[in-house]
Amino acid sequence: MSVLVVGSVALDTVKTPFGEVKEALGGSATYFALSANHYTPVSMVAVVGSDFPKKHLDIFKKKRIDTRGLEIGKGKTFRWKGYYEYDLNQAHTQKTELNVFRAFRPKIPKEYEKIEYIFLANIDPQLQLSVLKQIKRPKLVLCDTMNYWIEKKRRELLLILKEVDILLLNDSEARELTGKHSLFKASRRILRMGPRITIIKKGEHGALMWSENFHFAIPGYPLEDINDPTGAGDSFAGGFLGFLAYTGDLSEENMRKAMVFGSVMASYNVEDFSIKRLERLKDKEIIERYREFKRMTHFEDLNKGAIE
Amino acid sequence: MSVLVVGSVALDTVKTPFGEVKEALGGSATYFALSANHYTPVSMVAVVGSDFPKKHLDIFKKKRIDTRGLEIGKGKTFRWKGYYEYDLNQAHTQKTELNVFRAFRPKIPKEYEKIEYIFLANIDPQLQLSVLKQIKRPKLVLCDTMNYWIEKKRRELLLILKEVDILLLNDSEARELTGKHSLFKASRRILRMGPRITIIKKGEHGALMWSENFHFAIPGYPLEDINDPTGAGDSFAGGFLGFLAYTGDLSEENMRKAMVFGSVMASYNVEDFSIKRLERLKDKEIIERYREFKRMTHFEDLNKGAIE
Repeated sequence: MSVLVVGSVALDTVKTPFGEVKEALGGSATYFALSANHYTPVSMVAVVGSDFPKKHLDIFKKKRIDTRGLEIGKGKTFRWKGYYEYDLNQAHTQKTELNVFRAFRPKIPKEYEKIEYIFLANIDPQLQLSVLKQIKRPKLVLCDTMNYWIEKKRRELLLILKEVDILLLNDSEARELTGKHSLFKASRRILRMGPRITIIKKGEHGALMWSENFHFAIPGYPLEDINDPTGAGDSFAGGFLGFLAYTGDLSEENMRKAMVFGSVMASYNVEDFSIKRLERLKDKEIIERYREFKRMTHFEDLNKGAIE
Repeated sequence: MSVLVVGSVALDTVKTPFGEVKEALGGSATYFALSANHYTPVSMVAVVGSDFPKKHLDIFKKKRIDTRGLEIGKGKTFRWKGYYEYDLNQAHTQKTELNVFRAFRPKIPKEYEKIEYIFLANIDPQLQLSVLKQIKRPKLVLCDTMNYWIEKKRRELLLILKEVDILLLNDSEARELTGKHSLFKASRRILRMGPRITIIKKGEHGALMWSENFHFAIPGYPLEDINDPTGAGDSFAGGFLGFLAYTGDLSEENMRKAMVFGSVMASYNVEDFSIKRLERLKDKEIIERYREFKRMTHFEDLNKGAIE
């Protein structure tokens, strides 16, 4: 089954200790789409400007991402400029030019209305709410957010949280949203705000998934080289939701697998700048890293009576 | 089989956002011993001053820790004063009074010479070397260190690394020792320095174990409350080596289990100040948390052909 992402398509200028790119293809919808499309068809709602390079549109086309919901606005494409130091969990923003993104009002094409797996990438919670009003009975809504909305649009954010199944956010955002330092307490608090599952991303330190019934934790995949962490969270979301939509199975066991696929996609994405690694990624490599993840984290349970 | 620890016994004055203690029982040998003795008999080599409170000696006695190697020196006991802010991975030292620890020259009692499982806690690598000269054919030597020795006694540290089986250190120490930011690269570099296994502790973010043949990663155990991180690393070492000595099994499978027991002990230790939690910890609780760790981290491997 296909997935729908509503988010940003951007031109990113990024510098890390390992290199830099100028006006490279980026944005939450981009990373999500290029990750999820390894699993299942992806439809995209976003906006770019009239200056958006054709070569980037060609990437979407080549990857058979459905861009009927990608609006070409009057004006320039959203641009982000930032850098990372050795702490690759921390992005430093130098410049954000919203451009056409400022007036973005997501319009869901008729053909997308029945898509059942939805990713509301990190945009204004008011716009996230407007998306849900245009969708018919989704099976699963995954929602991302960021500190800016937690601070500036808390009321709207709390409204959208009542409507989504899973909230995806990073550790500092979880702490800011809940006022709880312990991620254990923060997760529990978020579940009371609406979502039945919370996923907390911890960058290179892995991720946690929390529900009333179970907790799941995975470490980060230890990488030889991390070149550019941009888009790791959205690549994670793409692997996670893409796998769930592909299998149509929302059992706890399958959710745990989806977390691993999410981590696999994020771990590949950060190996190169922009979407380069996702673009050339082979399905075989996904399977290989999943299995390596399993080998790397596996340990035996205790037999009855052990050390007792 | 029993384990031997050579390290410090100290009086710690510690403040965290959640409380404080004054001149509480601490030190690497103390935390290790009170953790490992849940698994196997522990013998200790350390030094305290003539001011060392009898109530602390009584704790060792009550826990049946063999203190024939605990010297009572002329002078005052080693004292450490420090605090933690919300980033509990980072200890801030306010005062270190070495006192009798300054002249500490570990003497291994005749009765200890044949102990086969050795923990060289974080002391001067020259002293660590002198310990190994006094021991007969150990089966496993686990060695800790810290930034101070990496900077001040690098030559001696490199000598001891050639003699130990496992080096245990935290992420920033691994980076400093090897000059490699990637923990993947740092681990590989350490293996070339001598140890056949490296364990990198990442505090609340879990731990990695690395050898030529396998990699193992576990996330941190998500805790509702962390009150005092002091001694987490030595509690980890106690669970890890205590379990290995108890089972006498150095297979990869058992090493993985030992990592989980180490994490369980560290996760309990940080729930209360000083050694209070380890002191009242029940074996049943260790088993419970191990099993919870398994439930929390488990996911199914892929069947042949999945998504392929």
